[in-house]
This record gives sequence, structure tokens and C-alpha cells, in this order.
Amino acid sequence: MNIVSTPFRLAEQVVSAISAVVGAGPVTLHEPSFSGNEWLYLKECLDSTFVSSVGKFVDRFEVELAAFTGAKYAVAVVNGTAGLHIALKLAGVKANDEVLMPALTFVATANAVTYCGATPHFVDSEERTLGVDALKLRDYLTSHTEQRAGQCINLDTGRAIRALVPMHTFGHPSDLDGLLAVAQDFNLALVEDAAESLGSYYHGQHAGTFGLMGTLSFNGNKTITTGGGGAILTNNSELARHAKHLTTTAKLPHAWEYRHDEIGYNYRLPNLNAALGCAQLEQLPMMLVAKRALFERYQAAFAPVAGVKLMAEPEQCQSNYWLQTLLLDAEQANQRDSILKVTNDAGFMTRPAWILMHELTPFKDCPRMDLAGAQSLSQRLINIPSSSSLIWQN
Amino acid sequence: MNIVSTPFRLAEQVVSAISAVVGAGPVTLHEPSFSGNEWLYLKECLDSTFVSSVGKFVDRFEVELAAFTGAKYAVAVVNGTAGLHIALKLAGVKANDEVLMPALTFVATANAVTYCGATPHFVDSEERTLGVDALKLRDYLTSHTEQRAGQCINLDTGRAIRALVPMHTFGHPSDLDGLLAVAQDFNLALVEDAAESLGSYYHGQHAGTFGLMGTLSFNGNKTITTGGGGAILTNNSELARHAKHLTTTAKLPHAWEYRHDEIGYNYRLPNLNAALGCAQLEQLPMMLVAKRALFERYQAAFAPVAGVKLMAEPEQCQSNYWLQTLLLDAEQANQRDSILKVTNDAGFMTRPAWILMHELTPFKDCPRMDLAGAQSLSQRLINIPSSSSLIWQN
Repeated sequence: MNIVSTPFRLAEQVVSAISAVVGAGPVTLHEPSFSGNEWLYLKECLDSTFVSSVGKFVDRFEVELAAFTGAKYAVAVVNGTAGLHIALKLAGVKANDEVLMPALTFVATANAVTYCGATPHFVDSEERTLGVDALKLRDYLTSHTEQRAGQCINLDTGRAIRALVPMHTFGHPSDLDGLLAVAQDFNLALVEDAAESLGSYYHGQHAGTFGLMGTLSFNGNKTITTGGGGAILTNNSELARHAKHLTTTAKLPHAWEYRHDEIGYNYRLPNLNAALGCAQLEQLPMMLVAKRALFERYQAAFAPVAGVKLMAEPEQCQSNYWLQTLLLDAEQANQRDSILKVTNDAGFMTRPAWILMHELTPFKDCPRMDLAGAQSLSQRLINIPSSSSLIWQN
Repeated sequence: MNIVSTPFRLAEQVVSAISAVVGAGPVTLHEPSFSGNEWLYLKECLDSTFVSSVGKFVDRFEVELAAFTGAKYAVAVVNGTAGLHIALKLAGVKANDEVLMPALTFVATANAVTYCGATPHFVDSEERTLGVDALKLRDYLTSHTEQRAGQCINLDTGRAIRALVPMHTFGHPSDLDGLLAVAQDFNLALVEDAAESLGSYYHGQHAGTFGLMGTLSFNGNKTITTGGGGAILTNNSELARHAKHLTTTAKLPHAWEYRHDEIGYNYRLPNLNAALGCAQLEQLPMMLVAKRALFERYQAAFAPVAGVKLMAEPEQCQSNYWLQTLLLDAEQANQRDSILKVTNDAGFMTRPAWILMHELTPFKDCPRMDLAGAQSLSQRLINIPSSSSLIWQN
């Protein structure tokens, strides 16, 4: 029989469980670890003077990212948002289109859609994966859209829905089989926002390699970091070529002539940042082992705490456990804010999920389906300290 | 009396003059130099683990950039293009507007205008400064526009012309007095593309600080580099605050809540790149001395070469001499390509000016005035090796 927890008791129990795993605070939510060749490669980069748009580390980072993820091509970019912008553009998203994406995501997913002149259309998430609920989405599209000349038309707005962008939340792969089937049946391009899921696998295949394109992020809070950085993954050689072209000002190769054949972007990853990325990629397998070990320690520590579940990887998936995640039982949802306060006050940095996209002023008028699943999740999710270095230090 | 040069003779004379200054090739057009605290600060950055969006080097870089340029505020961004995009947005440029800018510029100026949904409107350049011809622009606007409700309306297209973006070519300040007067008289926001002109002064005041906002670039080919990077300069505290907000995903400050109050951008400069920038900024005064010394050596070497002039700083200006520039006499313009070929074949990297914007496919239908000045210049300009390290090594 579970012990009945007062609000205060639950928050204190969470603090105790975290502390049992990570020791005394202060402990950040996620911090990078530079214990490999980071130093060496940065120095090599400076010594060569190739710190910017040209240099061997960018090429090497792209080759090694492709090898690690199993994607045929990887194009390094300045950050995940830039990668998503270009991937959506190449997926054919244009002004006045709509793009389906979870309401439960970081704001970059929605922002990138607007950079194409398109409108985000928010869909619901499921507790099993924390990602888009494919079954509910299928029902919704069946009753709210119609196929016209090979396009999925939103019957409520009259606009074309061009793409579906699942986001693999905190590194847990979404229901890709279900979502790929929806994309195919409704003529939608599937672009994966895999910003959080480097090192995550769905049915043995790396996240971000299922859709037409997928995008990664190497921001400072991610599993590996390049300071700022990202990548576009694809198995399509023409999309890879075009992504590289668009992200490097669309300049045609020439010894001295500056001819640009379309409107391009300055989205290239500097060689300096790629040098850091190459060293970090060498550390990635070890980090993934550490992050899994951290999950297991938290699982043991939280087992006796009633009313709280530690998020585990979905069935037939291997998650990178980027951010360790507590999911409060529905009846404990009203304890979320006291848990956030007590843990942060105790020096353990925790945070809730992002505010749902449709609750943000710039997106409040965007189309959306019923979001009961996302709403419930967003009231019950808490991320807890997740750095891989917590394993090495404890 | 000048010696009559055959085409071959002129190219050979140029090779000899360059070689007399920089020694034997191969010599690149411009490469960075890391002879100060670059290594130390990068190491400090790694050791602190703050390589990304938070960290003391970003703040320090902004403070020191403001101090160096005399701008009240500097906002560090991921590159010059991003800076220009946000500066134009904050200047009120929006969909269906037009923005005046030189046809003789790097493509980023035009691209940034399109990111706002606006259309570049190309204007002519003058030989004296290589920048926008203020007198000719005034005449053009007088006959082609009309003021309606405080807006400058293009009578040919019916669209509002919102802003004027002079670019200080190769580090030579444009005619800012003339352009500021045009901007005032025709109700245009003046935003300076100062990507090439860190360390350049017009009447004793730093370029990029005259308009509503100015933008800098620290790309690998610039006077100082952060790998990739840029900055927005302004004297207006509200514009500075808003620029920082928009370039950092428009997130409201909170310990754990992710609330974004408008559509923002991931345009922040990573701390790693800012660390490099802080070290480079310390070297800047020395680099400017070296670049001026290189100009003087080239001036002596090219004095006897008929048909070619070395570009000197405009009157009452102090140029940073970012790229040293040859200007062929009109009757030698047809020798440009042979000079480019012979110099590059000899191992001295040279290049012509950019292809004029209206000659690029994506901008061929944009409005433009008569561009005789820019056309003449673009056929006669050649940049020659310009690294500050050429002085230290020779």
C-alpha cells in the first residue's frame, strides 16, 4: 500500500531521491563534458587558422555524423533551428501552408515553420512516447482534411497541410511507424525534429533517419555540443546537395567569382565549432552509457516514491536519456510547482516541460486539434539533473 | 610619360608589385592571425564548460565592442547576415516593403532584406568611396518617389521604401553625411552594413554608429574573426534590448518557465566563439596598424604601374584597409580577367568585386536605378592579398 504523501512530503521525497543519485547540490540540469580530444582539436584548428567557413573539421564532422547515425548524408549547420528551417523549405513548405507539429515541444519547431511563411498546426502527444499521438492524429486528419490534387487540405482553413514534424521528446523516439503511415496516407512530408535524440534508436534505426530529412542540435545543453550547432540528416543525395548549397549562401563554386543562383542563408557551421563536435562525437558512446546508467540509478531511487514515475524508453526503442524525466501521477499534478520550487531551492536544477505552443502569444491563433494529452503531460513532467558527468563523478 | 602596357605587361607588372610587398607565393587573399590570448580564452571557455549560449565571454565581447566602436550598445550575434536581418526587422522593414541598398555588395545585404519579406531596391555607387552615391540617389528619389503619410512611396511599384542600407565597401566608409541627409529628407531608416569596416572611421566616428543600427561581421575572412559571428551596434537602449531578445528566441527571463512572447530567432553567438572574439579584439589595434602599413607598401610598389590605382581611404576618413583594392583605369578594364588569371596562377590570390546584385538570378527582377557607376567599378576592381600577418612576416 502506498504511503499517502502530503505536498511537502512528495517534494521532499523527490529531493531525497535525486540527492541519493547525484550527491549534494548545486547540480545543474545538464552540462557538457570535455574529457577527450576537445582541447587538441581546437588547438589544431587555431594553428591551421581555418576556424571559419572552410576547414577539414566540418567535412570530418559530417562524415562521422553520417556514420554514427546511419544516414547517408549529414550537413552541418549553425544550429538546430537553422537545420529545421532549411529541411522544411526543402520539403516544399511555403507561404500559406500549414505544418503539423506537437504542441509539446521547444519553440524552435514552431519558429522554423514561420520562417517559411507557413503556419504551425498543433497536434496532441501521447504518454507512451511523449511524442505525437499517431492514432489520434489519424482520426483528426480523417475528419478535418480532404485530399485535393494530391494535397492534404485543411477543411477548416482551406490551406494545404504540407508536412508533419514529430519531435522526439527528451530523446525518446516518437511512434515512427504510426507517423510514417499517417504521412504516407495523407500526402505529408515527414521531417523529424531530432534535436534531442542523437544516440536514440527506434526499432534499431537511428532517430532522424526515418523521414525525408531529420535535424539534430548540438546546443550547449544537448548530449554533445559544438557551442552552437546542428545538422540535417537525409538519405537523398539531391536534398543533401541542396541543403549544403542553401546553407552556404547558394554560391556556385568558382575560384574568384561570386555568383549565387538562389536566395541562400549563412547557416554554415564554423570549423572551430566542428572541431569541438569531432571530439565530442568520439565521447558520445561513453556518454550514452553514462546516461543510461544514470537512468538506472534514478529508477532505483524513485522506485519507492509513490505518485511519480521515471520516464523509461518506449518499447522496441533505445533512448539516449538526454533529459531524465519524472512524470507525476494525474492526482499529483498540482504538486508540480512545489516540487520545482523545493528541488531548485535545494540546489538541484529541475524544470517543467515547455509551455505548450498554443499557449504562447505568437501562436495562440494557430490551428490545433484537441490537446488533452499534451495538456495533461505538460502539467506532470519534470526534468531532473541529467549530465553524463554525474555518473563519472559519483 | 606613362609606358604603354600590353595586356600581358600590365598583369606581369601587377604580379611584380604584389611580390615586391608580400614575397613569394602562395599568398591567400585574407587569413586570420591568432597571436594573442586566443588559445588561453578558448581553454578557459572549455574548462568552465560554458561554451554555448551562456557565459562571460559573450557579455565581455559586447562590452568591449561597444567600447571600441563608441556605440552605446553592441549585441553579439551568430553572423553578420543574422545581425542585418534583425536590424532591418527592428527598423520596421516588413513584407512588401522595399529597401535601398547598393548593387555593389556581398549577397548577404540583399538576402537579409528578403528574410523580412521585403524587396531589395538597388542603387548606384561612386568611385570616391566605393559606396552609395548620395547625390545621384537624392536625384533619383526626388523624381521616383513621393511622400504619403510620412512614408516614402516608390511611384513605379507603389510600395513603401522603408530603409536605406549603405555598405562600407572593403572597409572604406561611405558618404555618411550625404546618406544621412537623404535618409532624413525621404523618411528612411538608415541601417549600416558595416560588416567589412570594424576599425574604420568617418570624420572621427566609427562606421556603423551613424544609422539607427549598424552591423558587423567576424567571419573568418574579416579583420578579426570569431569563426562565425557578428554584432548589432546601436545607441538606442530599447532597440538594443529588443535585438538581444529577438536573437535569443524571445524568451522571457524565468528560472524554469519557457515563455516566448514573440517569434524569435536562434541567432546568439556561442560563448566559445565570443572567447575567440575577446582575444582578437585585443589584437585589433595592432592589426589595423599592420593593415595600414601594408597599404603604404603597396602604394609604393604600385606607384610606377600605369593604368592601376590603389584605393586609398576617402577624405576625412580612416579606413581599416580590410581588403586592399586595385582600381583599373577605364581603358584597362578589359585587362581585369587576365590580371586575375596571371596573379592567381602566380600564387597570389586575387579576386574581382562581387557580381552586381541585379545580375544574380534571384534578384534580377528587383527595382533599380541607373547603375553606371557600380557597373564601371565592378569591371575595374581587384582585391589583392591583405592579411595583417603579411606585415609581420615580411
